[in-house]
Amino acid sequence: MIIDYQTRLQTLLEHLNEKNIDIALITSPANVFYFTGFNSDPHERFMALIIDCRNNKFTLFVPALDKEIAGAESFVKNIIPISDEESPFSKLKSKLSSNVKCIGLEMKVVSMFQHNQLQAAFTDASYIDIQSDINKQRLIKSRNEIIYLQQAVDIIEKVLSEGIKKVHVGMTELELAAELEYLMKSFGAVGPSFPTIVLAGERAALPHGTPGEREFKKGDFLLIDFGVLTKAGYCSDITRTFIIEEASDKQKDIYNIVLQSNQAGVNAVKSGVPLKTFDMEARDVIKENGYGDYFNNRVGHGLGIELHEEPSIHENNNQIAANGLLFTIEPGIYIPDYGGVRIEDEVYINEVGDAELLTSFPRELQVL
Amino acid sequence: MIIDYQTRLQTLLEHLNEKNIDIALITSPANVFYFTGFNSDPHERFMALIIDCRNNKFTLFVPALDKEIAGAESFVKNIIPISDEESPFSKLKSKLSSNVKCIGLEMKVVSMFQHNQLQAAFTDASYIDIQSDINKQRLIKSRNEIIYLQQAVDIIEKVLSEGIKKVHVGMTELELAAELEYLMKSFGAVGPSFPTIVLAGERAALPHGTPGEREFKKGDFLLIDFGVLTKAGYCSDITRTFIIEEASDKQKDIYNIVLQSNQAGVNAVKSGVPLKTFDMEARDVIKENGYGDYFNNRVGHGLGIELHEEPSIHENNNQIAANGLLFTIEPGIYIPDYGGVRIEDEVYINEVGDAELLTSFPRELQVL
Repeated sequence: MIIDYQTRLQTLLEHLNEKNIDIALITSPANVFYFTGFNSDPHERFMALIIDCRNNKFTLFVPALDKEIAGAESFVKNIIPISDEESPFSKLKSKLSSNVKCIGLEMKVVSMFQHNQLQAAFTDASYIDIQSDINKQRLIKSRNEIIYLQQAVDIIEKVLSEGIKKVHVGMTELELAAELEYLMKSFGAVGPSFPTIVLAGERAALPHGTPGEREFKKGDFLLIDFGVLTKAGYCSDITRTFIIEEASDKQKDIYNIVLQSNQAGVNAVKSGVPLKTFDMEARDVIKENGYGDYFNNRVGHGLGIELHEEPSIHENNNQIAANGLLFTIEPGIYIPDYGGVRIEDEVYINEVGDAELLTSFPRELQVL
Repeated sequence: MIIDYQTRLQTLLEHLNEKNIDIALITSPANVFYFTGFNSDPHERFMALIIDCRNNKFTLFVPALDKEIAGAESFVKNIIPISDEESPFSKLKSKLSSNVKCIGLEMKVVSMFQHNQLQAAFTDASYIDIQSDINKQRLIKSRNEIIYLQQAVDIIEKVLSEGIKKVHVGMTELELAAELEYLMKSFGAVGPSFPTIVLAGERAALPHGTPGEREFKKGDFLLIDFGVLTKAGYCSDITRTFIIEEASDKQKDIYNIVLQSNQAGVNAVKSGVPLKTFDMEARDVIKENGYGDYFNNRVGHGLGIELHEEPSIHENNNQIAANGLLFTIEPGIYIPDYGGVRIEDEVYINEVGDAELLTSFPRELQVL
């Protein structure tokens, strides 16, 4: 085990103690994984890591049917199963000593319904947000996490290298997506970290389009945005845009503007400056070339055990870049009914504050 | 278009008016899809269908980068894009006429954070839960929806028929999962409706295990639990358990108990009786045969545009079964360190209150 759960839990406990929290509920599956190593989606069932700060006790509540796996995988070994007929909140109350005054919650995760249930079970309690404490911990990636994240990048780049060999005129977006996701598993991934995006021609202008029956034609843009989830529980996310058989001058122009924008964004990455700098440096290239109206989203997002994590790299984010941040730089130009180009890399701000690229797949235009 | 969005919206509006709600926010992506036909995961971005009951006006707020697709796919054509730099709640406030007194929300979906943001933007408003109104609408599946759901079942059964031909000793769980998910796309699905479960031997005892490097051996249980998401946006979910090359008497016994349990559950399905009946009828067979301790979850769950929807079929659910319900019946016996069997079908309570099976893949033990 190269992830130090003990330290993660201890750090969290210190933050909770500073806030005089009696108990904290961690209910986001990603956060439960982060603190215990147990990676599970309980769907609508209740799962929570409970931290009782009054006695430094950690307890993992899991759906009954996950008890075995949780026992095997979780660093926290005190596991309480909840069967489908039980009320999780009553069980929670019965297992905790009384007199709970202050409860820490992930307020972006806990629903109003759950909040109401908690209020009914713990009638005297007040609630404090612990989301930012957890996010701050998860924001800073250790070198060990980067090793895992690099594995996720290595797999997806191998998939991309192999996958583009299969591209041919007449193939559909869905067919290529199927090939790519098959390769992901063949190369050892659990599967895609999000539904693979393959968009051809004018459809490449849809930043979040989904693959369909559109067949590849000569002169098409071919935008591939995808990533894997590894067995270790880490995500990758990369985009490359190709052109099929023959590129027009306009396509080349647009491509090269996005490439320069990507390079400007990556070049700007370092610790000590506001995160917005990276967005603005990339965006300026696109604006200067007259395509500002066709780049209408942020330049990047953090990722790790989730596909989208902090930080958000957008032009209003004044947060100062720190060592340990990992995020995408993914400028694009999307022209409705014409097509689009996006080039997305993953950048890490390392231990000395410099940018390290995890992605290494060539960025220069490839005509397939 | 065979889905009548107009009627869905009108029905919802009537429920909202009965509760004297001024505006309602629908933020669950599945609910937005249900009411508009726009199927999108906005990740951490804000997306909401806003229903202004004071003027019967429907507005869809979407992330700016989804504006094009939303415009093409949504039945609600009044679309307001929100860029990454904007505050969704400020924008929401600016677009609605003032004097909002009562806001309807899906309380199982809206987070405490969003609730706080709403409270800051609409300082005089009170909040009412509209989750149950929406769930009640979605609970009753029309024949048109069943046509879509049947398509999802047909694809997965075709995948299963083809997929098991590839099973051989020495193949790993992950390899078979990759083949199955490739077939899903080949047969026209968007992809799996949840990560495909393939578990061999003693690992079949893990109701929610994930496929790993475990190689198939002679005499293994082989449990396959999977489904597809179709382009129309509907899910399927089926489980079959096989035995590789040679089955022991104990394996056959366990299999046949689960088969009888499944049959007893399905046979019990009809409208007019409590939903718990279906669980109890299936569970009794397992209990009577001495395996009651090895079946520790509910017998089934609803599904539709989401994998898990209402109703929940468990032994304490006194809700009366109505025409239009669709759910799984999936009893199992899971013996730690030995193996497990689950047989899962999808059952619809049709227009005259009878059970209709959507799944038709043979249930009898197949030795591969």
